[in-house]
Amino acid sequence: MRRYRLASPRGRNKRLRGLHEVTTRGRFTERLSLADAWAWLDACPDLSGSEPALLDQIFGRVLAVPLVFPEDRPDRDVALVDGYAVQAESTLGASAYNPLLLTIVPKGMELAVGSASVCHAGETLPRGADAVLPLEAGEVAGTALAVCDAAARWTGIGRKGQAARRDDVAIAAGRRLGGPQIALAASLGRTHLSVRRRPDVAVVLAGAKPPANEALGMALSALVARDGGQVRLLSGDGGVMRGLADATAADLVLLVGRSGWGEDDDAVTAIAATGGRIDHHGFALTPGGSAGLGWLGGAPLLLLPGDPLSALVSYELLAGRLLRRLAGRASDWPCGVRQLTLSRKIASPIGVSEWVPVVYRGLSAEPLALAPADGLAGYAKADGFLIVSARLEGYAPGALVDVVVTSGDTATQDGP
Amino acid sequence: MRRYRLASPRGRNKRLRGLHEVTTRGRFTERLSLADAWAWLDACPDLSGSEPALLDQIFGRVLAVPLVFPEDRPDRDVALVDGYAVQAESTLGASAYNPLLLTIVPKGMELAVGSASVCHAGETLPRGADAVLPLEAGEVAGTALAVCDAAARWTGIGRKGQAARRDDVAIAAGRRLGGPQIALAASLGRTHLSVRRRPDVAVVLAGAKPPANEALGMALSALVARDGGQVRLLSGDGGVMRGLADATAADLVLLVGRSGWGEDDDAVTAIAATGGRIDHHGFALTPGGSAGLGWLGGAPLLLLPGDPLSALVSYELLAGRLLRRLAGRASDWPCGVRQLTLSRKIASPIGVSEWVPVVYRGLSAEPLALAPADGLAGYAKADGFLIVSARLEGYAPGALVDVVVTSGDTATQDGP
Repeated sequence: MRRYRLASPRGRNKRLRGLHEVTTRGRFTERLSLADAWAWLDACPDLSGSEPALLDQIFGRVLAVPLVFPEDRPDRDVALVDGYAVQAESTLGASAYNPLLLTIVPKGMELAVGSASVCHAGETLPRGADAVLPLEAGEVAGTALAVCDAAARWTGIGRKGQAARRDDVAIAAGRRLGGPQIALAASLGRTHLSVRRRPDVAVVLAGAKPPANEALGMALSALVARDGGQVRLLSGDGGVMRGLADATAADLVLLVGRSGWGEDDDAVTAIAATGGRIDHHGFALTPGGSAGLGWLGGAPLLLLPGDPLSALVSYELLAGRLLRRLAGRASDWPCGVRQLTLSRKIASPIGVSEWVPVVYRGLSAEPLALAPADGLAGYAKADGFLIVSARLEGYAPGALVDVVVTSGDTATQDGP
Repeated sequence: MRRYRLASPRGRNKRLRGLHEVTTRGRFTERLSLADAWAWLDACPDLSGSEPALLDQIFGRVLAVPLVFPEDRPDRDVALVDGYAVQAESTLGASAYNPLLLTIVPKGMELAVGSASVCHAGETLPRGADAVLPLEAGEVAGTALAVCDAAARWTGIGRKGQAARRDDVAIAAGRRLGGPQIALAASLGRTHLSVRRRPDVAVVLAGAKPPANEALGMALSALVARDGGQVRLLSGDGGVMRGLADATAADLVLLVGRSGWGEDDDAVTAIAATGGRIDHHGFALTPGGSAGLGWLGGAPLLLLPGDPLSALVSYELLAGRLLRRLAGRASDWPCGVRQLTLSRKIASPIGVSEWVPVVYRGLSAEPLALAPADGLAGYAKADGFLIVSARLEGYAPGALVDVVVTSGDTATQDGP
């Protein structure tokens, strides 16, 4: 039975050091739970670093430096509606029984009591104005404006600083930038913002042969991009060690394949020989049980199984969670979760977290059975997946389950 | 009071033709409900058209033509585990008390009863083999393999065609392509797939002046891209009609600004003069009440208000829904919905659907008050929004509400 050398713990993940004791050797005699794997991932240090990005390329990025209002907003009193600027005092006592007549003066002229001028929403008020009557509140006849309602002071006016004061935070650091944030930044005259840099993710493909190798590389690249990373695909064709040597400067290393216990499964020895280490190898998880967690050159390293289904599942359950946080995002499932009703029972062994793909229609989710020889063909039909906790023996039909939506959403799903 | 000419209905949206009767004139004396607006949008005809796309640029696109398996999958019987290929018959009667000894023969040699050969998961079986024992089921001593368990026929073997038969559908048309679909297509040797083309969305910016105009253009471009469209920004600087003239070949037209009833609000007359028509103008919706629905050159046309907040809200509530469907996606909210508990009450007028931005933390959502002068500054702080139905006067504190998540998700949200 093969054994591998564990580099001595380097003090990272200190609060989890106790978990080292359960590091598995040989054939995964002690498998780490999914909860403990997540605790390990969540304890990896955050990344720093930011870069400027053009506003039109910034959608979905994460703001690194707070954006503040350079001046009060609005920066002056402005009309909120199209209508007539007046002195509120001029309208005192106006009613349908007692219309008051104001004199319309040219735009821009200072207003006195008894005069009014046309103004549009968003415009600066003329001097002397302290209310804006909406168009429908007045009736024009020549230069006279008949007013039938008294207006309180500041009616129809957005006061200087009403929305924000100078130096208030407009967009907080850490926020993912969407439409409103882009519009606000542009309205503040910004062309760039400082955003978190994308983590550099080295993916070393050590396992499958072409074209399965290439297929997995393409799928993992797309998932890394979805989760905010920048991928570097490194071939393991020249040997796992050579692939790993090119990965040392990365923020996150995914070593795919050769994670098991067959005669060519040399991933773990190659990691040690490259100066890395494996903290945990083997999880109470199916598929993906032969995944591993460790370090390479100061960066977290995830060992993913080479079988396409297991690789994609362990990416979703382990790597994606870490990557999203390193990219400054929520580590949450990226496409959301739906609470659905299971149409068929699921039986699952106690002590192992089981990943189960499902298709759903409306509020009903149906588990998919995968062919042992080719799980990928089945997974490609799934709308999402659920995880049966290691504490459960499965679910009865009709159980309410949390289904993690995958990006492979279909157009046939019903609305929420 | 201004009136505009309505072109005669051209028979599109036939099942909604009755709604024409409530088309508003003048100052939105009859406002269309949000539900009826959605019915109008949902009745617009689908788009056709597809284009080839490279697998590495296909993530999130929608498959146009079903992908079928070109051959059985697996295309032959394969080993499911690393271990020993045998004839099942050779293991009959084996137990811990009665280990049977098999002879290990070189790989590739035809197996007879009593012989075994090493094989790896995924490999083709040698002739004569009808079971694969996992490594741990045998103990090797020289060329002898001691077997302690009887194996049933086809144990450890993935049968030809087990996952799929030739000509079975591998990925259905209409599916949005994610990691598993990319991996599967690549494993079938595909470098391209035929995907739905992106709808051509003409955005005519007729309302605000620079830089607000540009800001809105950038934000709307990002939202159109998020929802699967390809944007063409057209300036309304040379007049709304000129902008509209350039938009006639589009799949969807968004005319932004000049939608109200002020003296420069000429959007509606310009649409009519360009050969288009407005079916509905004015909605029981706030903000966004001055939006409109109509047609230009055979394409649906949405008139959005020029105020940045109203424009973004009416994009989200009206345009995005239609665009996602035209792009072949679900018309659902693109970033999901969370059921959260309201921390403060919301008062809302009966008869109007009110859009309310919220921030959330954990399972608690707090409505945001927006400054009338500058709603955008407040919206940029929101994590999502809810819609108070026109039938409701609002919500009490503690009410469970459906919050639509926006792409501006923060990293501070709690997990599902």
